[in-house]
Amino acid sequence: MEFKEKLKIYQNQINKELEKYIRKNECPEKILNNSMEYSLMAGGKRLRPILVIVTYELFKKDIEKCLPYAIAIEMVHNFSLIHDDLPGIDNDDFRHGKPTNHKQFNEATAILAGDGLLNNAYMVISEDLKNTKENLDTKLKVFNEFSYSVDRMIAGEYVDTEYEGKEIMEEYLDYIHINKTGALLKLCVRMGAMLANCAENDLNKLTNYAEKIGLAFQIKDDILSEEGNEEILGKPVGNDKELGKCTYVSKYGLNGAKEKLDIITKEAINELKEYGEKAEFLKQLALYIQNRNK
Amino acid sequence: MEFKEKLKIYQNQINKELEKYIRKNECPEKILNNSMEYSLMAGGKRLRPILVIVTYELFKKDIEKCLPYAIAIEMVHNFSLIHDDLPGIDNDDFRHGKPTNHKQFNEATAILAGDGLLNNAYMVISEDLKNTKENLDTKLKVFNEFSYSVDRMIAGEYVDTEYEGKEIMEEYLDYIHINKTGALLKLCVRMGAMLANCAENDLNKLTNYAEKIGLAFQIKDDILSEEGNEEILGKPVGNDKELGKCTYVSKYGLNGAKEKLDIITKEAINELKEYGEKAEFLKQLALYIQNRNK
Repeated sequence: MEFKEKLKIYQNQINKELEKYIRKNECPEKILNNSMEYSLMAGGKRLRPILVIVTYELFKKDIEKCLPYAIAIEMVHNFSLIHDDLPGIDNDDFRHGKPTNHKQFNEATAILAGDGLLNNAYMVISEDLKNTKENLDTKLKVFNEFSYSVDRMIAGEYVDTEYEGKEIMEEYLDYIHINKTGALLKLCVRMGAMLANCAENDLNKLTNYAEKIGLAFQIKDDILSEEGNEEILGKPVGNDKELGKCTYVSKYGLNGAKEKLDIITKEAINELKEYGEKAEFLKQLALYIQNRNK
Repeated sequence: MEFKEKLKIYQNQINKELEKYIRKNECPEKILNNSMEYSLMAGGKRLRPILVIVTYELFKKDIEKCLPYAIAIEMVHNFSLIHDDLPGIDNDDFRHGKPTNHKQFNEATAILAGDGLLNNAYMVISEDLKNTKENLDTKLKVFNEFSYSVDRMIAGEYVDTEYEGKEIMEEYLDYIHINKTGALLKLCVRMGAMLANCAENDLNKLTNYAEKIGLAFQIKDDILSEEGNEEILGKPVGNDKELGKCTYVSKYGLNGAKEKLDIITKEAINELKEYGEKAEFLKQLALYIQNRNK
């Protein structure tokens, strides 16, 4: 099967699973629930939950066991997008080609929808922990790592915001991305591997893979923000430069950034070599991250 | 010992425990950590963690077992205050006599500090779950109830914001407070009782007590917002009326609200009668909630 077809199947699977957590009931906070749904179902790539599932599948077949964690991470990702877009932070009007949450609803709703989605992630995890006793030690480690990774994401977002428009040292640029984007992507791969109870050696290799695609993801994001197609991206291009944001492009130039992206993608794929055919989708995912146009 | 003295001892104990979780290290997100500390240590009454401990003490002495949950709830409470104060929600400039978080730092920092504190609560819980195997089933139930109660708090805050300045039905006023303030206070008492593995019958009575002091707390808040002393309260008085907020005072008048407060406090205390001397502090707490001036 073609990579794109398989990707679509995974995306549909995630969307179907997410739908189960959407609250449609009539209640005084109905609009808040709608606004959470609006962002959660706005057409994201589902890269994070797919990473959880595909890594899990390297070792085991019963993927329903890792689904709650895949769902929880997608909720956290969407919480972070809603809050990052707020007027007090990035002040973005569009995402995925649609008005951002605070533009579609209002600022108060967007703040609380973000809070709600972050908290929802932990509701999902707590339900799974309460209802399954199997593999509990591992799941408690996963929950712990989950909460610490979200903490790193928030710290990374803070430093990114703090240094906007300021000349920054290379170590800060790396710090921002290792935390803001990298921590969550690494968590996805590690959760998939840990939940499948893989060997320590496998976990190390997959962690290396995850760190490299995390960096590649951010470099590509910076490149797209500079030279992407606004219509395909669904958000304005050139904003980073205008805001004086520190990016891999502002630091290494467009060609330097592309070169770095190429090297890091090859390194990521190299970490998978002993899994052969089984890791084909993870390999294609690395290439997808490198070559995506949105 | 006098109630006020004992209260002070508990408050100091909570403050000392909270200090352990404050991050003082040099790191790029140092100011974010400072802003979380700023709100967390701004001089709150520590009512919620104290409720956890005192309820636990009705049944058991080893209170260190319930401390992580007491700390986590105080973090959640402070997250909610930071976000509620934001310009996009209540737009408040002062709290506990000090500038609100976004006034002291800035809006981006306040949004992320709130996110960080909410997430920190789950870091604390996940550490406890990972490191102690004892009483794990109960703790998993507590974690589950914790996450669902925070969800109710966020929903209540949303409905409160949504109906600001609008004429509301009595059932909505109750809905707001049962969720916005009540859910967390009820959680505190229930967590203390559950963690001590009390009998079902005790849990029911204490839940009734908690629901009643939750309602009393909100009625008193509304009364203070109308006729409190600005200097003692540390925040402006009369804002609710100006914003056209739905409160127990706007609904029942000042005297009607005071009457309701009196009845509900007596009912709360009545739930404790069979515990005798042992529940003296919980009884005094209900009276404290009724008579506080800040």
